[in-house]
Amino acid sequence: MEEKILSTQQIYNGRIVKLELHEVELPNGQHSKRELVRHPGAVAIVALDKNGDVLMVRQFRLAAGKVLLEIPAGTLNPDEAPLDCAVRELQEETGYKPGEIEPMGGIFVAPGYTTEFIHLFMATDLIESKLALDEDEFIELDRVSMKDALTRIESGEIIDGKTISGLLRAARKLGV
Amino acid sequence: MEEKILSTQQIYNGRIVKLELHEVELPNGQHSKRELVRHPGAVAIVALDKNGDVLMVRQFRLAAGKVLLEIPAGTLNPDEAPLDCAVRELQEETGYKPGEIEPMGGIFVAPGYTTEFIHLFMATDLIESKLALDEDEFIELDRVSMKDALTRIESGEIIDGKTISGLLRAARKLGV
Repeated sequence: MEEKILSTQQIYNGRIVKLELHEVELPNGQHSKRELVRHPGAVAIVALDKNGDVLMVRQFRLAAGKVLLEIPAGTLNPDEAPLDCAVRELQEETGYKPGEIEPMGGIFVAPGYTTEFIHLFMATDLIESKLALDEDEFIELDRVSMKDALTRIESGEIIDGKTISGLLRAARKLGV
Repeated sequence: MEEKILSTQQIYNGRIVKLELHEVELPNGQHSKRELVRHPGAVAIVALDKNGDVLMVRQFRLAAGKVLLEIPAGTLNPDEAPLDCAVRELQEETGYKPGEIEPMGGIFVAPGYTTEFIHLFMATDLIESKLALDEDEFIELDRVSMKDALTRIESGEIIDGKTISGLLRAARKLGV
């Protein structure tokens, strides 16, 4: 079932994404083109405060054309371990450090055309710490009970993929 | 919190994705760049056979560098309604038409840089029908019980985002 890369054309080398056009050999020997977005990968964190509420962030997403309610997340720095990135991003976006943090698998967001893999984490025992947002990030922090978060998935208010995967995995783990 | 687009540069116009570079005005009045992948949108279907097993597909994903186990899915044709696309893609990828099909929300796969929104559906009362794969698709059909699918999410065998969102939403709906 594998595809063999025959040649690669670099189309764009940006700040976050790179775009490549690959000529591939299909399993039947025929040739085809594959458009591929290269992305460094990312992390997303379901962080639960001492009341069991989930720390969530609201931010405007140009690609969605609106403000989305998401779990904290961010892109891996070069050579950064996913766990370190999760601790850093949680702190930057919410102002809390995790006392406990554990991996909760991960997702290829759109394996048809992007290499981005998001490592999911669950964080608890949060410790208040400093806020240090990226210069171009404008984020509003919110706290939502897990039950309320699940209702907001069903109602269509929460429509971010990593957030739905993360919350539903956490809900199963917690038996909610 | 909104960002205002000041100018747009077309970088690439491909078969599936377009790449644009936007200059935006941030809420604080400063300017920043946003890389944006334009994607037509897609559908993904949790299809349950008469035994309650989920129809799943295995295919090689160049972006993941391996074969992934996913729910059937596909890209919207121009002007195609998501429901029509879901019926078509299910038939093409599995050889079954849904007797019943209902929407189950949707996901922005990576709203930080791509416009792709995947409409999720649940299909039941499947009717055997003809298989008509795209020319460059090589897909292996599998049937997995919902319980087994959930185990495979936890074990890390299922790592496709739309598949995890779709299966976990369906599991809650079905009370599994």
